[in-house]
Amino acid sequence: MQNTITSRDNPKIKEYVRLRDSKSARAAEKKFVLEGLRIVEDALRENAPLSAAFMTEDAAEKHGDTAQRLQEKLADNFFVISGEVSKKLAETPSPQGVYACAGILDKKIYLDKIESDGRFLILNRLQDPGNVGTILRTADAVGVSGVFLCGCCDIYNPKVVRSTMGSLFRLPIETDFPYEKLIPALKRRGIETCAAVVDKNAASLKEHVFSGGAAVVIGNEGSGLSESEALLCDKRLTIKMKGTIESLNAATAAALFLWELCS
Amino acid sequence: MQNTITSRDNPKIKEYVRLRDSKSARAAEKKFVLEGLRIVEDALRENAPLSAAFMTEDAAEKHGDTAQRLQEKLADNFFVISGEVSKKLAETPSPQGVYACAGILDKKIYLDKIESDGRFLILNRLQDPGNVGTILRTADAVGVSGVFLCGCCDIYNPKVVRSTMGSLFRLPIETDFPYEKLIPALKRRGIETCAAVVDKNAASLKEHVFSGGAAVVIGNEGSGLSESEALLCDKRLTIKMKGTIESLNAATAAALFLWELCS
Repeated sequence: MQNTITSRDNPKIKEYVRLRDSKSARAAEKKFVLEGLRIVEDALRENAPLSAAFMTEDAAEKHGDTAQRLQEKLADNFFVISGEVSKKLAETPSPQGVYACAGILDKKIYLDKIESDGRFLILNRLQDPGNVGTILRTADAVGVSGVFLCGCCDIYNPKVVRSTMGSLFRLPIETDFPYEKLIPALKRRGIETCAAVVDKNAASLKEHVFSGGAAVVIGNEGSGLSESEALLCDKRLTIKMKGTIESLNAATAAALFLWELCS
Repeated sequence: MQNTITSRDNPKIKEYVRLRDSKSARAAEKKFVLEGLRIVEDALRENAPLSAAFMTEDAAEKHGDTAQRLQEKLADNFFVISGEVSKKLAETPSPQGVYACAGILDKKIYLDKIESDGRFLILNRLQDPGNVGTILRTADAVGVSGVFLCGCCDIYNPKVVRSTMGSLFRLPIETDFPYEKLIPALKRRGIETCAAVVDKNAASLKEHVFSGGAAVVIGNEGSGLSESEALLCDKRLTIKMKGTIESLNAATAAALFLWELCS
């Protein structure tokens, strides 16, 4: 027997919407939402702690294998929903009718256990969810040891979750260290800390050789790293640019730093 | 004396909206629109063929120098607009009250004149304006010789224009060659053509040494390059990825290829 939801006022639906729209609800209930076939399948594959899943009848028919695996895993917490209810849950322009709730992931990185030859990414005060998600996807692809987020947007924001394309489930991620404590702690562990700056006089990323443990810090989209934030680090590195262009998109700059960091 | 527009039905305002919203209007009138202080200042600096500019009273006061330069350049075609009119023109969530129309740029690249040691980017069937704009910005930053767009979205789409952050005015860009003719033509000029593919068995971008003239081809966001499109090229190159991740965001992949191409 399958559970069916046709009312937009069903408590499970209201819970999904609350988790989707409110950072404080996510923090209080320690859950977040997933929208789309691919990300829900990623969650299944990575054995993420799913607590509920919702599919329209059409989606459950079209993706029968996924529906079956969700039902096996979630039993009474797998729901078939009407098109009207799907419209209430959907945030994307062309919804696929596939949704889930999951418990937030155990993402701690223990500083006293990190390997001294690890390669880390630090994001400081990044605010755009699409940027943060895209950067996490790139960090996963190049194989960083872990990512620290300091004062960034919520990694469980639905737009971050979607943009990571599943990397959120795989990457070691830590959001609890204040920047001013993190950098000295990494230095004490023998990790070379490198600030990404826009400054023609800084050392060139291209010419820098990362050896041993290293961490790269990317700053806010608009304002970058402050002078004092950059000065906390061992090195200041820059992407040398041609012509009159002033800076790159934050996700692009992060990609180039990650590429060199993990080469 | 300054010209003032307070009616949303003013013909100049209607023309702006038409150019903003319609690709065919842009093609027919050979003009496009710019929104935002920075991009309008870029257009002034790069001596782009501006045909009209609009600023709210607040913006003209706050950015008096820019208002003065626009008025000197455009005389009767510089307009102070009301807040209501600005709302009609604005596409961004927090408009700055600065707008302009410009004639489309003379962007031809003459294949028989390109240098045989040039470095080129080819975008094939990219459809997302934000991606295309971001990639053009990166291409400008690393200093490519020129960009060819084949079957992509309109480069004068307002979202492309904004995302380029002024690079549109500087880069040699050519949109008129069909892909199937472009690749053989570049080969005849001695340019090595390299297809960016997602294929674990393809040669690694990281290990490839670009020497002499070279061009990199990036394919559609969702489907990449088709097998036959890739086979037209001299080489197939891939970004080797860790773990189970399948591919990178198109703008990220393009950034890494451009970085290696122009290093």
